[in-house]
Amino acid sequence: VWAEELAEPGGRVTLADDESRYLARVCRAREGETVSLTDGRGGRAEGRIENLRPRVVVAIEGLDRADRARRGTLLCGPPEGQRFDWVVEKLAELGVAAIRPVHCRRAAWTSSSVRHERWTRLARGALQQSLGRFAMTVHPPATLESAVEEEAKASVSLFADIGGVPVRQLNLPVAGDVAYVVGPAEGLTDEEKTFLGARGFRAISLSENRLRTETAAIAWAAWWSGSCTSQD
Amino acid sequence: VWAEELAEPGGRVTLADDESRYLARVCRAREGETVSLTDGRGGRAEGRIENLRPRVVVAIEGLDRADRARRGTLLCGPPEGQRFDWVVEKLAELGVAAIRPVHCRRAAWTSSSVRHERWTRLARGALQQSLGRFAMTVHPPATLESAVEEEAKASVSLFADIGGVPVRQLNLPVAGDVAYVVGPAEGLTDEEKTFLGARGFRAISLSENRLRTETAAIAWAAWWSGSCTSQD
Repeated sequence: VWAEELAEPGGRVTLADDESRYLARVCRAREGETVSLTDGRGGRAEGRIENLRPRVVVAIEGLDRADRARRGTLLCGPPEGQRFDWVVEKLAELGVAAIRPVHCRRAAWTSSSVRHERWTRLARGALQQSLGRFAMTVHPPATLESAVEEEAKASVSLFADIGGVPVRQLNLPVAGDVAYVVGPAEGLTDEEKTFLGARGFRAISLSENRLRTETAAIAWAAWWSGSCTSQD
Repeated sequence: VWAEELAEPGGRVTLADDESRYLARVCRAREGETVSLTDGRGGRAEGRIENLRPRVVVAIEGLDRADRARRGTLLCGPPEGQRFDWVVEKLAELGVAAIRPVHCRRAAWTSSSVRHERWTRLARGALQQSLGRFAMTVHPPATLESAVEEEAKASVSLFADIGGVPVRQLNLPVAGDVAYVVGPAEGLTDEEKTFLGARGFRAISLSENRLRTETAAIAWAAWWSGSCTSQD
């Protein structure tokens, strides 16, 4: 379960309303049961439920912290309809660090298509579901140019293109930051691809088939997530 | 666009109602424009639109056929809610050959959760969208045991398990058949895992995080699709 702040062993953590409800009603947790908490910033604590109501209080028994070994960030043009909800949920499950919605030449994010609270909730739900340690951030929409600027320090920069290098021929670094751009449903323009190329982004292809925006995003995240697992 | 039967160059193909409507109304195609047709069985034809109404007639100018170099098949327990719709659409985009919904110990498919017509429509839409050559088949639900029997000839058999071998350590054969099992939202039982192991299925892990059923399915398909692209 997510907690804003963890505590050292011996300390106590009081969960927020949403998480308290989730534990008490959805999981039907009982007093005395053990529970695993994360702050979404690398901290993970084990503890025992002392009180369920009005808010869950957990007596912390163990705490450890880890740094992200590698960050994956998606820069994404608008997909069709509400498909971005899926991108948020799936990328959070797969451990991606951040998503930057980007305005593209052929399609921009509109105020009605940006549902920031919903995305934050989906990302947090996915964190709990996946027993992950790191929360995913969804940034406000920005231009492609400024988002690329923000990710200038990435050690590997890629963009989805059916004519690109097959992803299997890439050797992603196990550590370090990867930035990955997916165009909107209407695709990136040649000008945008040229711009990305000039900024060091390599065109990669994830499939023989043409993929929708959300599919290209999730396929990349799956590839990236699978390219480093704890057993390495 | 999908067509039940293609024709040799010089011949004519009349599209079905759905595909005719799609071309005329959604794509706003005009007479004289070229269009690419597939029968979903490896045939791809290029032709010119002769008539738009009442049904689209295409004069075929080129035809080529290919065999599937490799087949990927998913055996999948029921995910939560309507999430299987996404599995169908995304796996069809990624070029998976077939899905077998399987009844598992902890969760079975119910008549209300099986929406075969809808899935067939989603799979065909994804084929058109992705410019693929091969249609995906969605089989009726079966027991895990009988579905495994149907896939006994697969050259690689895998199942999703967070404790399994990291997928990056696998070297999937570029040709040949791969069968992959994902448990239901409630997970596979130890007994089911033992059964799969005895039938030659290897446990693989796609992420450090615990993945939902539909995420494990799509992540595998992305991995599988990316492990062989036409540029190889």
